[in-house]
Amino acid sequence: MERINVGLIGFGTVGSGVVKVLQERNSLLREKVGIDIRLVKIYDKDVSTKRDVRINKRKILTRSLGDVLYNQEIDIVVELIGGITPAKDIILEAIRQGKHVVTANKALLAQAGRMIFELARQCGVCVEFEGSVGGGIPIIRALKEGLISNRIELIYGIVNGTSNFVLSKMAEEKISFQEALKSAKRLGYAEKNPALDIGGIDSAHKLAILSLLGFGFSTKPDTIYTEGIERIEESDIRYSGELGYALKLLAIAKADGDQIELRVHPTLIPESHLLAGVGGVFNAIYVKGDLIGESLYYGEGAGRFPTASSVVADIVSIAQKRSSGICAERSFAFSSSIKRLKAIGDISARHYIRFSAIDKPGVLAKIAGILGRHRISIASVTQKQQRRAKVVPIVMMTHKADESDVAAALAAIDKLNIIRGRSIRIRVEG
Amino acid sequence: MERINVGLIGFGTVGSGVVKVLQERNSLLREKVGIDIRLVKIYDKDVSTKRDVRINKRKILTRSLGDVLYNQEIDIVVELIGGITPAKDIILEAIRQGKHVVTANKALLAQAGRMIFELARQCGVCVEFEGSVGGGIPIIRALKEGLISNRIELIYGIVNGTSNFVLSKMAEEKISFQEALKSAKRLGYAEKNPALDIGGIDSAHKLAILSLLGFGFSTKPDTIYTEGIERIEESDIRYSGELGYALKLLAIAKADGDQIELRVHPTLIPESHLLAGVGGVFNAIYVKGDLIGESLYYGEGAGRFPTASSVVADIVSIAQKRSSGICAERSFAFSSSIKRLKAIGDISARHYIRFSAIDKPGVLAKIAGILGRHRISIASVTQKQQRRAKVVPIVMMTHKADESDVAAALAAIDKLNIIRGRSIRIRVEG
Repeated sequence: MERINVGLIGFGTVGSGVVKVLQERNSLLREKVGIDIRLVKIYDKDVSTKRDVRINKRKILTRSLGDVLYNQEIDIVVELIGGITPAKDIILEAIRQGKHVVTANKALLAQAGRMIFELARQCGVCVEFEGSVGGGIPIIRALKEGLISNRIELIYGIVNGTSNFVLSKMAEEKISFQEALKSAKRLGYAEKNPALDIGGIDSAHKLAILSLLGFGFSTKPDTIYTEGIERIEESDIRYSGELGYALKLLAIAKADGDQIELRVHPTLIPESHLLAGVGGVFNAIYVKGDLIGESLYYGEGAGRFPTASSVVADIVSIAQKRSSGICAERSFAFSSSIKRLKAIGDISARHYIRFSAIDKPGVLAKIAGILGRHRISIASVTQKQQRRAKVVPIVMMTHKADESDVAAALAAIDKLNIIRGRSIRIRVEG
Repeated sequence: MERINVGLIGFGTVGSGVVKVLQERNSLLREKVGIDIRLVKIYDKDVSTKRDVRINKRKILTRSLGDVLYNQEIDIVVELIGGITPAKDIILEAIRQGKHVVTANKALLAQAGRMIFELARQCGVCVEFEGSVGGGIPIIRALKEGLISNRIELIYGIVNGTSNFVLSKMAEEKISFQEALKSAKRLGYAEKNPALDIGGIDSAHKLAILSLLGFGFSTKPDTIYTEGIERIEESDIRYSGELGYALKLLAIAKADGDQIELRVHPTLIPESHLLAGVGGVFNAIYVKGDLIGESLYYGEGAGRFPTASSVVADIVSIAQKRSSGICAERSFAFSSSIKRLKAIGDISARHYIRFSAIDKPGVLAKIAGILGRHRISIASVTQKQQRRAKVVPIVMMTHKADESDVAAALAAIDKLNIIRGRSIRIRVEG
């Protein structure tokens, strides 16, 4: 039986999960794919903490990267330490050493994916990364293989479990953002410093990967317009719910001629849209292709075993491909028709806008007048009744309007003395 | 550049769709996978009907199967004629001739899959069949690759677009089964003779394939308990909707120790379940694995281009794998822990039951008495008010009850002289 040797970099939660799966499923995988997958080295800075898997520590565990990177026996290096430094150097060196790479490192792939894939192509090795987007959901495979002959038109992703949990919790329990976040932290769904998740940065990383895969368009994540969920109020979820919409943090990629829209922001989608039903920490990626039409992939977006499931699938996939010489990464070398990123000011969308206005006659006329002058037409208005309040929320849905017009109109409206506090606007999709 | 030659059997709707995709995407695929895919022969009985693709008819189109099967040039045979005869013989002969096979033939794979895969293994060739279940949805790939290290616990599939369209239409427009079916026919979503679709047979075929893939358990589709949607009344959809459930035709596979439940029947699922939102002709497959947890795959379940998308993905996948010698089918050779099919009488489920009873005192006591004697406990009862009607519907939800008990109780109740017409029962899942 053919044998493939794996070296693991990072013996943390996911890393030890991978070890567990490889141990427990070794014979199943031997039967299914006819390949014996052996874990020969594990690198971690910390070799003393007890993990819940049994390994031959003396033989396998090491604090020296070289024991993995320069080990002639090792065919596949699995990188699970995350972050840019030192993961980037480790992966590049592994590739130069002729080793295939499996990683779940979305930050690194978003930042340096194209360079990594290009080096892999030159060195004739594979880089697989199913765990980087959507945890256990086989979305990378779907885009690379199942949908290979499609022209992808649109991707909507709920790709950050923390944000989705917070928004779902706010909606279900009618609680504030802060309360929902506290609950997420208590349950282990949010990190101590959740800025990357709730600020949309993590979603932007994943969107950069999806953009490369789906559209052949590579861009640094910091070029992607990114807005988090920090400013969302419970009332916005409630009001938009009354209008038939659900509020989600969406990562959006949309082809438009030779341009692509890439953006991450809180988004209203019709309650009938399948994405609206994706609650809690779950992730889902909605993909529209010219041949398949609409499709959706749903599952746990993170976690030890979902991610380990994807990592092991990648190991198996490389084990199956490597002897064919087709491992050299090509998938991203295709000449995309997409040439550039559309500026956020150039997009147009329907909007939900909430103004906080003083409750007196003529207010609506003033707001509507400014909107009109900025070519924004109003689809519906509701003034929310609040007993004896001096300041009342006015909720508007607009027809499609240019982003730059909306920004200019809101700036002008927020300067009116009848307006208290910054107006809230949320884009609508679907 | 490496080249792979394809012979196509069947130049109908999907077949000509595949030709179109291969032509239009040839250069994209060359870039993405570095392989030149050439269509060298197309077999069809009918070589005169005009199709909407341009081919060199004289050189490529043939009425002789031998021109494909015994053509030394051809590496992959794509079978798209459907049905058992002559598709089975064609595929088996192609395999014996050392050709890889791509097919979307669910009826054949359900009937003879294991035999086909075993012969393929012996002959060292691949058989791919992404188009056989869920049209363009890459569910086969997900189960074979993405979820390879998972123990699959449960699959729920909405895998028949016609039935799902009819049920969705009945629910949305509050119309009868017959009216909804008529509308499906008019829109081309139902065949003239829709028995295979609405009777659940097509779903049972797909379930047999999912069972083999997900659980390594092979069984003939006629051993699968199958109940169609023909007897569903609009009122059942309405009443169950009031109770918070959606009605779907589900294909269910559930592991239980060394047994497996395989069944196709109308099923109530909670409205909060993602499957409840799958409307119209769409398909979705919900898979629970021990590592990934819950996952769902959604898309168009049939149609020319969704299916062609899957067929071309299979061709590409074989083109990538064949030089590695790992094409020999193994995926189904794993020793499953599942040993036998659970008899339908042995399952247990919650039930929705609708009785049509004469509206007089004591009726409910009689029904409840019989249910009690059969160990069926009632979760809720509603007597639907109908003005001046002598016969009224009584709707009950039961707690979990054994299938055989429910059958016996209903038989006894339906014999009561206070009952008019056969009682309706629908199983509940999720």
